Amino acid sequence: MMIGADALVGTLLAGGVDTVFANPGTSEMHLVSALDRQPGIRSVLALFEGVVTGAADGYARMTGRPAATLLHLGPGLANGLANLHNARKAGSPIINVVGDHATYHLAYDAPLTSDLDGIANTVSHWVGRARDAAAVSGLTARAIEAARSAPRQIATLILPADAAWSAAPAAIARPASPPGPTVDGAAIEEAARALRTRGSQAMLLLGGSAMRGDGARYAQAIAARAGCTIGAQGANARIERGAGLPLLSRIPFQVDQAVAWFAGTRLLVRIGAPVPVAFFAYPDKPSLLIPPDCEVVDGAPGSHDPLQSLQALAAALGVTARDLAPVAKPVRLAMPSGPLDHDGIARAIAATLPDNAIVVDESITTGRQIYPLTATSPRHDWLNNMGGSIGYGLPVALGAAVASPGRKLLAMIGDGSAFYTEQALWSMAREGLDITVVIFANRSYAILRNEWQKIGAGPAGERARDMLTLNRPDPDWVALARGHGMAGERVTDAEGLATALARRFASPGPGLIEAWM
Amino acid sequence: MMIGADALVGTLLAGGVDTVFANPGTSEMHLVSALDRQPGIRSVLALFEGVVTGAADGYARMTGRPAATLLHLGPGLANGLANLHNARKAGSPIINVVGDHATYHLAYDAPLTSDLDGIANTVSHWVGRARDAAAVSGLTARAIEAARSAPRQIATLILPADAAWSAAPAAIARPASPPGPTVDGAAIEEAARALRTRGSQAMLLLGGSAMRGDGARYAQAIAARAGCTIGAQGANARIERGAGLPLLSRIPFQVDQAVAWFAGTRLLVRIGAPVPVAFFAYPDKPSLLIPPDCEVVDGAPGSHDPLQSLQALAAALGVTARDLAPVAKPVRLAMPSGPLDHDGIARAIAATLPDNAIVVDESITTGRQIYPLTATSPRHDWLNNMGGSIGYGLPVALGAAVASPGRKLLAMIGDGSAFYTEQALWSMAREGLDITVVIFANRSYAILRNEWQKIGAGPAGERARDMLTLNRPDPDWVALARGHGMAGERVTDAEGLATALARRFASPGPGLIEAWM
Repeated sequence: MMIGADALVGTLLAGGVDTVFANPGTSEMHLVSALDRQPGIRSVLALFEGVVTGAADGYARMTGRPAATLLHLGPGLANGLANLHNARKAGSPIINVVGDHATYHLAYDAPLTSDLDGIANTVSHWVGRARDAAAVSGLTARAIEAARSAPRQIATLILPADAAWSAAPAAIARPASPPGPTVDGAAIEEAARALRTRGSQAMLLLGGSAMRGDGARYAQAIAARAGCTIGAQGANARIERGAGLPLLSRIPFQVDQAVAWFAGTRLLVRIGAPVPVAFFAYPDKPSLLIPPDCEVVDGAPGSHDPLQSLQALAAALGVTARDLAPVAKPVRLAMPSGPLDHDGIARAIAATLPDNAIVVDESITTGRQIYPLTATSPRHDWLNNMGGSIGYGLPVALGAAVASPGRKLLAMIGDGSAFYTEQALWSMAREGLDITVVIFANRSYAILRNEWQKIGAGPAGERARDMLTLNRPDPDWVALARGHGMAGERVTDAEGLATALARRFASPGPGLIEAWM
Repeated sequence: MMIGADALVGTLLAGGVDTVFANPGTSEMHLVSALDRQPGIRSVLALFEGVVTGAADGYARMTGRPAATLLHLGPGLANGLANLHNARKAGSPIINVVGDHATYHLAYDAPLTSDLDGIANTVSHWVGRARDAAAVSGLTARAIEAARSAPRQIATLILPADAAWSAAPAAIARPASPPGPTVDGAAIEEAARALRTRGSQAMLLLGGSAMRGDGARYAQAIAARAGCTIGAQGANARIERGAGLPLLSRIPFQVDQAVAWFAGTRLLVRIGAPVPVAFFAYPDKPSLLIPPDCEVVDGAPGSHDPLQSLQALAAALGVTARDLAPVAKPVRLAMPSGPLDHDGIARAIAATLPDNAIVVDESITTGRQIYPLTATSPRHDWLNNMGGSIGYGLPVALGAAVASPGRKLLAMIGDGSAFYTEQALWSMAREGLDITVVIFANRSYAILRNEWQKIGAGPAGERARDMLTLNRPDPDWVALARGHGMAGERVTDAEGLATALARRFASPGPGLIEAWM
């Protein structure tokens, strides 16, 4: 006999969803049982729900496809909310499957009863609730279609326990195929016309899929033709970069630097990038980073595909594949020596990054030099935090590695950020993934110490310093790695970091390097 | 010049709120600065927001007063939501202060912009948003009044960055005093009448403040007078218990056992306890634990105080303080030996629990024998998870210890639960609190293995077993303690646990014992 839980799992498979990141509870036992009966789906357990949802984000960024999450009631979804926020901002498709109490049990206000639908609505584009087992397959198909629509979405399917455990019809609904990429011809024409007439005053600003494939080469060729500059948004879901691809300069994080970066721009042609705004507001600084009189043209509005739009814009300007600059060979930086400062860290990574690596960047203040110095490294993918909620990096690394067998992954994480979702280390170890975690151990919320300087409150007193520092006691990330079942080592200079990275990249499985600053 | 942030801190102090658990970000820097200027408030930093909110819960349970939390935007509040759910179910008052973007910045949809108000509404009884600096003090006073109302509430105050950094009037609003405990005379009369006429068929079921003070002694005297039985709800915010107080049997967690426990009860007089319902629904098992024909009388409806109501009920039945049984002397169990099974663990704790201890119980499957065996231990407080979202224990222990200088705290946590909020260990170490953490390391979601048995799916396959076990790799809690800056040790038999507990309780500061099962 098939039950609602089997209908859900069967529909996921019919929709090509073959990976589940899970932190189940009692109300999801029938789902665990259905997954047990279906060898076509891989289930990855995490010890905390923020790891579950961040992993689904990382998986989606690498594959373009949704994974499912399996979460326990309202509080389980709540624990995953911050990384769903990050995933939403990254445009990652995710299908959350959230178990709920049996329909008739909700009236009793049991301890775990909460405003589950309200929690789901805060971050989901689509929310569905199965009223009974017969509704499960069709609703699951709708969830898959919602996640795969253009643009991609967060879909949350609430599955009451009795809908999961009751007998269900054998028929499995098949979700419609995802829509293909589209281009807005009128928007392209307008962008081309603007660049033809005002190219010398213009910047072409890229984001989304325009940061992948030959996007940067097309942008470079367009810039040569139109006389404009090119740039990229500050954080990106995934950049394909490295040797052979032009280095796209990104909007600086600091407001003053960003305003200077855009100074003189009279026309912004954006493709896949939002209108540039400050991460935070500050007294007497603008929210909008471009000059007030800068005209903005959107070449890929709404759900249109940035990379295809960029290529269409190139064609409209008469740029063809023959105009693309030849692809360069990778150039490795030499192994560094010296102190473990920001420069030494960047050089150690640039000297060792393997071919076809995936880099998950949550390096915050420490890592700002790593991006330019790895421009000539072998080809690799680079993932940023799009939603600004820290604790995204380790979970995203987990999911990206699950999605990318055979590739090496480097997760660069500030220690303050790493603490939010440190439980991800255990899942990396359990799955034996080729992940090298580097923790930048400055024992500080260094970004907040920078922010403190800006508010003009003078030197921080002891109570304020305590809110900005992670010393007293010093964390020990080698012990934290071991505690989560992973090998770890501490390095204290640039040469030590480079040597450890080279050794780690040559070995299978996960490991952690604590860069003690 | 006073700014909005100073107005907030000043109003908190005027309302007697002198403790803040914090995980601030950029939008809260002016609040950190205001706290730095105000030595009357203690700020405790946590590395994750679930620790912040759980600590505020623990603080409230011990003091009856709200602490403030300091959280960063929607995602920061989201990370704290699960333990706010637990706090809400425990009736703990909390004042969440959540920084938001400057009012004019929200329109730009910056990366950290989210449905903050929606997230706040899912768990808060009261939500306020300061429109400007002039509104801050008055709104903070309203938040304090909401948190201290009867019953106690979760109040969430959203503070936009420009309301925090702008000049504010010097006047500080004073919140109204909290309402005192009240009794519903008509409800007491009805309960007394019911017990007088049908006492032999009745159970008196206690919860809330009736589990404290002389509540259990009054209940015992009422039972002797009326011929009824007495019991307590399964989980309680805080029980005052130990030698001298009668052992109140609690509703069993398992539905079948609970139904048997209530069998034959024709009248339930509940005081501070909700109508008893199953934690989860199961096929062919009831949601309601009492017999279908059992009459229910509520002796402390709405916001009335359970302990005062219980004493009023006693008086209505002619029971006076002279009818209370004399207080017994504590009786310590002998130091145990033998394997580290559930019995050995319970005996080790019963043999060593210090006088006036606080016990935070998140022992899940391992600990069910500890409660009865410690009935004759020296007087102590016992805290349960009221909301069922695991990961409550370590944060609640942190906050309870901050609230209770000079008392020893024992946190008993299953390993699966401990992982959700392991970051609390660091804050315990930083604050130097007298907390002994015992991790029950069975490398398993043992409760889910029990639940698996119930669904009748036969033996779990490898994929299902992987969802229910925490081995492969084994966590190492001694390493996790060290990683978070805390001393740890592993014990493998009952004598080792008892010896380690005795040594820990005799030493100041925090430490962790991994009970390797």
